[in-house]
Amino acid sequence: MKTYKSALQEQDGISPPKALSTDSAKSIKAKRKSQPSISDLVHGITSGNITALSRAITLVESTNPTHTRKAQGIINACLPHASNSIRIGITGVPGVGKSTFIEAFGTYLTSIGKKVAVLAVDPSSSLSKGSILGDKTRMEDLVKNKNAFIRPSASGNSLGGVARKTRETIILCEAAGFDTIIIETVGVGQSETAVHSMVDFFLLLKLAGAGDELQGIKRGIIEMADAIVINKADGDNLKAAKSAKLEFNRALHLYPEKDSGWSPKVFLCSALQKEGIEAVWRVIQDYLKTTTSNQYFEQNRNNQNTFWLLQTIEEHLKSNFYNAPKIKTKLQQQIDLVENGKTTPFAAAEYLLSL
Amino acid sequence: MKTYKSALQEQDGISPPKALSTDSAKSIKAKRKSQPSISDLVHGITSGNITALSRAITLVESTNPTHTRKAQGIINACLPHASNSIRIGITGVPGVGKSTFIEAFGTYLTSIGKKVAVLAVDPSSSLSKGSILGDKTRMEDLVKNKNAFIRPSASGNSLGGVARKTRETIILCEAAGFDTIIIETVGVGQSETAVHSMVDFFLLLKLAGAGDELQGIKRGIIEMADAIVINKADGDNLKAAKSAKLEFNRALHLYPEKDSGWSPKVFLCSALQKEGIEAVWRVIQDYLKTTTSNQYFEQNRNNQNTFWLLQTIEEHLKSNFYNAPKIKTKLQQQIDLVENGKTTPFAAAEYLLSL
Repeated sequence: MKTYKSALQEQDGISPPKALSTDSAKSIKAKRKSQPSISDLVHGITSGNITALSRAITLVESTNPTHTRKAQGIINACLPHASNSIRIGITGVPGVGKSTFIEAFGTYLTSIGKKVAVLAVDPSSSLSKGSILGDKTRMEDLVKNKNAFIRPSASGNSLGGVARKTRETIILCEAAGFDTIIIETVGVGQSETAVHSMVDFFLLLKLAGAGDELQGIKRGIIEMADAIVINKADGDNLKAAKSAKLEFNRALHLYPEKDSGWSPKVFLCSALQKEGIEAVWRVIQDYLKTTTSNQYFEQNRNNQNTFWLLQTIEEHLKSNFYNAPKIKTKLQQQIDLVENGKTTPFAAAEYLLSL
Repeated sequence: MKTYKSALQEQDGISPPKALSTDSAKSIKAKRKSQPSISDLVHGITSGNITALSRAITLVESTNPTHTRKAQGIINACLPHASNSIRIGITGVPGVGKSTFIEAFGTYLTSIGKKVAVLAVDPSSSLSKGSILGDKTRMEDLVKNKNAFIRPSASGNSLGGVARKTRETIILCEAAGFDTIIIETVGVGQSETAVHSMVDFFLLLKLAGAGDELQGIKRGIIEMADAIVINKADGDNLKAAKSAKLEFNRALHLYPEKDSGWSPKVFLCSALQKEGIEAVWRVIQDYLKTTTSNQYFEQNRNNQNTFWLLQTIEEHLKSNFYNAPKIKTKLQQQIDLVENGKTTPFAAAEYLLSL
């Protein structure tokens, strides 16, 4: 083949500016590389690296199957490091001052050497695009505190999904050295029950009201509470708060004894004035003493684990069944037949199961 | 072929004794015949024939698949005739005087023209071989009363099974013209919850105690009660009963409002002296008035039906899963791994679901 000099010539290019050194370029490329490995993240988490913790939680919260598999690997590797913590559930209706309370309580805990993680279970946050914890400005001291870690609620279209993500996040936080895990719930749907079944201690935050304190409290909440804290017990509210405390104490006395052997306590506090915060921590210490000496603490965690195992299985079985197209079409039909007295619930169930 | 007279001769036999007439023989044969047909039993039940009702209930309680199919046919045919009844659940610990109360209450109801069926949900009766209603001598007046029908608890190895049989029996009793169905429970396991979900009105029978009335009451029972009746409020007990009434009233006031819009009432009664029985019926009438005018009565029955439909499906799905041999072997293994911190509840559930 004959070669000849083309009319087209290539000029020498301009060298890249030296401002970006070879080292810098390498470092940037490394950062742009795909996600860190499982072992990188596990190592990061167990050394208390907050970036690694946040990245792992993002994987837990992802719906991407690759992320989910990676998250499972991280969680399994973190399990041996996740222990020696106290998990505290906090519930209360909006306006009761949960953020202010958690800010004051969390700040106090870090001041006595604790490492505090604040998580939330809020199944509504996927709709409202942001749980109350999303608004971190409400906890402006805590968010800047290097011994505190605040993470808004995972989103998800089912409470089961949100609860699962939160439980897995608890393990990661504990492996990262957080020894006090606060899980907040805004009390939407069955979220208190979900939170109650993942914590060691359950705290109900209340305001003193117009004298009829127990009206309007969701069923079963009082029975779940290990402590009731009446917030905003300051200034003009103090008298009402004191009488609310009396009424709650009387009410608690009327409830059957708890399996934990613990008698729930009622406290006054002013999160704004930072009063009564230390007493809440003292009562949690008393609770720990009672429930570790009678083995309830360990037993309860085991029961919770078994509960979540069975719960996950049963939710899966149900969603498989009810989401099958043939069931979706026939279920309402059968409910209507039952309501109109054309068939019994049992015959309708057998029919649906036979499809 | 040659015929010849045999040496063997047959003598005329002796006629059958006339004491058993042809008609009697036919009638006996007819009775010995296989079970009556579905339409025979349905006709019998809807004409108020107690033998037909009892036979149909025996079919409902049978575990023989042929009987079960026949029972379903009968129930379906009875459904259009089953209505206009009030279903009353009665619970209380042993010794509270449930039998005496039901005897007095049932007798009063028949005296004002009611037809009363008394059923029981006692999942323990298959073990103890006989629920308290099995001992019918405890209700010796009511058992002889032609407007009352008493049937002991079905037996079964699960509360779900016993509850299902009782619910189907309710339909048969209503089709047989019983307009007041009393369902008693001895409060074993979750039996109150099961009974509560099949009745219109739930009554808790109590005794006056040593002043701390609410201690020892199973969780959730108070919240289910539409009325609390303090029995044996007579003689020396009267004072204690009155103070128990005060305490229960105070406790009830502390509970959240019921979906029914009904405020539970507390009564004194002496079933033995037949005092206070009429008042219980009056309050049930008030309850009916409240809950039919606000549509809760109908809505509640619909909810109960849907509940039982879904409950039956879910029990079936769970028992199918957990009884599979491969799951039976692996489940405890996974629970142990979770308890020893080797895996998470969610990973264990996924593993079991993948088998």
